[in-house]
Amino acid sequence: MTTVDLNADLGEGFGVWRLGDDEAMLDVVTSANVACGFHAGDPALLLRTCRAAAERGVRIGAQVSYRDLAGFGRRFIDVPPEELTAEVIYQIGALQALAEVAGSTVSYIKPHGALYNTIVTDRDQAHAVAEAVHAVDASLPVLGLAGSAFFGEAEQLGLQTVPEAFADRSYRPDGQLVSRRERNAVLHDTAEIADRVASMVSAGRVAAVDGSTIPISVESICVHGDSPGAVQIATAVRERLLAEGVQIGPFS
Amino acid sequence: MTTVDLNADLGEGFGVWRLGDDEAMLDVVTSANVACGFHAGDPALLLRTCRAAAERGVRIGAQVSYRDLAGFGRRFIDVPPEELTAEVIYQIGALQALAEVAGSTVSYIKPHGALYNTIVTDRDQAHAVAEAVHAVDASLPVLGLAGSAFFGEAEQLGLQTVPEAFADRSYRPDGQLVSRRERNAVLHDTAEIADRVASMVSAGRVAAVDGSTIPISVESICVHGDSPGAVQIATAVRERLLAEGVQIGPFS
Amino acid sequence: MTTVDLNADLGEGFGVWRLGDDEAMLDVVTSANVACGFHAGDPALLLRTCRAAAERGVRIGAQVSYRDLAGFGRRFIDVPPEELTAEVIYQIGALQALAEVAGSTVSYIKPHGALYNTIVTDRDQAHAVAEAVHAVDASLPVLGLAGSAFFGEAEQLGLQTVPEAFADRSYRPDGQLVSRRERNAVLHDTAEIADRVASMVSAGRVAAVDGSTIPISVESICVHGDSPGAVQIATAVRERLLAEGVQIGPFS
Amino acid sequence: MTTVDLNADLGEGFGVWRLGDDEAMLDVVTSANVACGFHAGDPALLLRTCRAAAERGVRIGAQVSYRDLAGFGRRFIDVPPEELTAEVIYQIGALQALAEVAGSTVSYIKPHGALYNTIVTDRDQAHAVAEAVHAVDASLPVLGLAGSAFFGEAEQLGLQTVPEAFADRSYRPDGQLVSRRERNAVLHDTAEIADRVASMVSAGRVAAVDGSTIPISVESICVHGDSPGAVQIATAVRERLLAEGVQIGPFS
Repeated sequence: MTTVDLNADLGEGFGVWRLGDDEAMLDVVTSANVACGFHAGDPALLLRTCRAAAERGVRIGAQVSYRDLAGFGRRFIDVPPEELTAEVIYQIGALQALAEVAGSTVSYIKPHGALYNTIVTDRDQAHAVAEAVHAVDASLPVLGLAGSAFFGEAEQLGLQTVPEAFADRSYRPDGQLVSRRERNAVLHDTAEIADRVASMVSAGRVAAVDGSTIPISVESICVHGDSPGAVQIATAVRERLLAEGVQIGPFS
Repeated sequence: MTTVDLNADLGEGFGVWRLGDDEAMLDVVTSANVACGFHAGDPALLLRTCRAAAERGVRIGAQVSYRDLAGFGRRFIDVPPEELTAEVIYQIGALQALAEVAGSTVSYIKPHGALYNTIVTDRDQAHAVAEAVHAVDASLPVLGLAGSAFFGEAEQLGLQTVPEAFADRSYRPDGQLVSRRERNAVLHDTAEIADRVASMVSAGRVAAVDGSTIPISVESICVHGDSPGAVQIATAVRERLLAEGVQIGPFS
Repeated sequence: MTTVDLNADLGEGFGVWRLGDDEAMLDVVTSANVACGFHAGDPALLLRTCRAAAERGVRIGAQVSYRDLAGFGRRFIDVPPEELTAEVIYQIGALQALAEVAGSTVSYIKPHGALYNTIVTDRDQAHAVAEAVHAVDASLPVLGLAGSAFFGEAEQLGLQTVPEAFADRSYRPDGQLVSRRERNAVLHDTAEIADRVASMVSAGRVAAVDGSTIPISVESICVHGDSPGAVQIATAVRERLLAEGVQIGPFS
Repeated sequence: MTTVDLNADLGEGFGVWRLGDDEAMLDVVTSANVACGFHAGDPALLLRTCRAAAERGVRIGAQVSYRDLAGFGRRFIDVPPEELTAEVIYQIGALQALAEVAGSTVSYIKPHGALYNTIVTDRDQAHAVAEAVHAVDASLPVLGLAGSAFFGEAEQLGLQTVPEAFADRSYRPDGQLVSRRERNAVLHDTAEIADRVASMVSAGRVAAVDGSTIPISVESICVHGDSPGAVQIATAVRERLLAEGVQIGPFS
C-alpha cells in the first residue's frame, strides 16, 4: 500500500500579523514546515505552532529562509555561501529549541521561497544549505525538488533527500515548476488539483503545462497554507488520496 | 586555593560592523558570553566567535537579550513574559547549534544589557527568562547578580546560579550597581580596577561609592570587551589575580 | 452646526501581511493616520495607502511609533529623548515624501500605541516627540489626549493640539483611558458605541467606567481599523453622528 | 580653471556601531553621501551627520540602498521595481527631513553598494530608482557611472546626471569597475591613487587594468571613508588636485 506525506508551511505570521489557518491545516497534514523567524515567525508564534503540531502528532520541519521579513523570503538575495551556511545553522538551532520545549523535535529541513527556488540551480548556495544541515545533524532529511542542485549537494554529503510535488503548481515539460510570474503557475480548481495529486501519487505521472505527461517522483505533497481556500483544497487532496487507497503518513 | 572565572561579552558586531577585539579577549577570559543575534551578532560572526572560543578551550555562554539591534539591547522593552520566554528559548537554541557546529556547546546563560538590569528587580521578566532556561536545559547555570529577582526565580526552578562581580563598575552601599547614567558608574583606572578585583576575590569585599565597605559574593568577574583599553584592563585584572595566588578557571 | 473629524489607523500591514480593510475605512473617515514603517507599513503599502487616501480626499497624518515591528509598537521602549526626536523626524519625512508623490501631504501627526500612551505622562519622551514635530514643521497639528504631557509640551512649543476621543474605549473617572490590560477596556456593542460617541460630540460628556459622567473635549473621534467588525462600527458611528445633525469633516 | 567635486559615504554606523571617521572626512570632501537607514544609519546618527555637514557647508546627498542592514547593502536583492521605487522615495524623504532640521537639504541622490552596481546594467531596477528620484523632486541630480543603465533611465526622465570616478578602484578596458571579488579591484598606494585622480581630472584619462589608457568623464571623485587610511588617502587626493591647479568644489 502506497503511503504519502502531506506537508504545509506554518507559523508564517509575525507579531500581530497572521497568515493562514494553522490550526485547521494541522488537522490535514502530516508534516509542518515551521518558519524560523527569518522570513516569518516570531518566537512566541513559533512556540505555539510547535506545541499545536506536537499535540496532534504532526512532525515538525525547519523552514529555513533568507533573512527577509519585508519580502517574506520571496526575493533572491546574493548571500555569500559561508554567511548562508551560518544563517541556516542559526535558524535550525532556534527552531530545535522551540520544538523540543514543545515536546517534539525538528525532523527535517525544507528551504523556503526564493531560497528554495535558487538552490534548484545555484550550486554554491545549494552546497551552503546542505552543509549547514549536515553540520547540525547529518541524519536530518531534506525536503525539495528531485533533480535539483540542492539534492545533488545533499546526497554528496550523505543526507537523505525526500522529493516532494506541489499540489497546486503547474509543471514544465522538464519537470521544473512554472514560474509564479507566469499566469498559469498556480492551479485553483479543487477537483483538478485533487485529480493531479492522485495521478502523481498513484501513477507517478502528471500533466505538464504543454499537455505532455511527465514522470514525477513523490514522497511528500506540498499543500499551500496561505492561499484563499487553502484548507479546503488541502482537505480535498487528503480525502481524494484516502479514497484512492493511499495512506497518509509521514515519509520514512 | 581560590579559583575565579573571568567572563566577557563577545561576538557583538553585526554585518560589517565590529565591536571590541574578540581574539585578544579570548586569550584572557575563561568564559565567553556570546551574543545571540538579538542585540548584536550575525550568524557568521557568531560561528566564527564560537570557533575561536572552542579552539582556545574558552567556555561559551549564551548572552540573551531583548530584540533591539538599534539600541544594542540597552533599552528596557516592556515585553510580555510569554513572548520573552519564547525569545530567550529561540536565542539559546540558535547559539547552541552554532556552538555545537564549532565543536563546543552552550555551557551557561547570561542576560545582556537592559534585560540584565531589568530582571534584577522585575519579577515577571525574571521568571520569564528563568523559565526559558529551565525549559531548554535545567542543567544550564545562569550568570547574574547575587540577590537579584532573577536569581530568586532561577533558584526556585532549581537552576544553578553563579554570582558575578563587575571589574570596572561602582557599587552602591546596598550592593547594586551605580547606574550608567551617573558620572562615576564606570571606573577607568587600570590599577584601581585590579586592586578592587583582588579585594573582591580574596576578601569578598569591595568599597562602595560612599566609601563604605560591602560584602560581595563572586564566582566570576565580568571584564568589559568594548570599552577603550578593554583588553589591557582585562589583562591587568588577570595578572593581578594570578600574582595574588588566585587560580583563573571556569566556574564549576 | 457642530463638525467632527473621524480618524483611523491605516497602512498597518507589512510585506505580505495585511491588517484591517483600508479601502473600506477610507470611505468612512476624514483623517487617515498612516503608519510610517516603524511599527508597520512597508514603503510600497504606504504609497498605495497615501494614493487611496488622496483619491478620496481623505487627509493624511503621520502615525509615528517606536521602532518595533515585532511588537507592533505596543511595547514601551526606554528610548533616550534625543534618539526619539531623530526617529520621529525620520518617520515624518519618509511619509511626507510618499504622501507628496501620491499628490497629497502630511497634515498632522499622531503618535501610535505605546508611544501614545507613554507620552500621556512621560514628560521627556513627550517633549522629544513635540520637538521633532516642531523641528520638521511648526504648523503641523498633533492629535492626542487632552490634558496629556504631550499636549503640554506641544503647546509650549506653539504647536496646535487637536483633542480626540476613542469610540470604543472605556474612560476612567479622571478622563484617562482604562488600560487594555483590564477586561472592560474595549467596547464591542455597536449601538452602545454609537450612543457614546453621539454624547461625546453633542454634549461633551461621556459615562466613565464607574458610572459617573465626565466632560470630554473632542475635535476628532478615533475609530479602530483592526478589530473585528471595525468597518461596521465606524460606519455606525458615522451614520449616528449624521443623524444627530453633526457634520463629519476634517478638524480645522 | 577645472573644478571637481569630492564625495564620500558618511553616516554609515548603526546604533553603537561606528564606521569610518565622519568628522575628518567632512573636512576633506565637498559632497557627503549620507546613508538613509536601509543599509546603515540610525536616525540620531544621521541627524548628527547632517548637522556636521551643514556646519562645514558640505552638501548632503541621499545614499539610497536595498533594505539590508545585515549585508550593509552589498548583496543584490531581487526587489520588484514598484517596491524599489517606494523604498527609494521613503529613504529620500526621511533624509530630507533630517537634513532640513539640520539647516541644510538633500541636494543629490547616489545609490549605494549592490544597488549602485545592479543598476549599471539592470534596466528595470535602474528605472525604478530614477522614477523615485523624479517623483520626489525632478530637479535632484543623480551621481553615478557614465554610460550606466541608471544614467540612461535618469536622462530619459529629464534628471541631471553627474558622472563620478573612483579614486581607489581599478577600471576595466570598457570603463566598468573591476569587481571587488577580483584581487586587484582596490588600490591602496596613496601616491598611485593621487596620480590616477590627477590624470582623470586633468586629462580625462585613466590607465585600465590591462595597461591600456581609457577616457573617463568626471565631475566628482568618490573617496572611500571606511577603508584603513581612508582619511589620509582622501587628503592626499585633495592636496594633489589643488597642487595641479584644480579647484575643489561642489558639482554644479
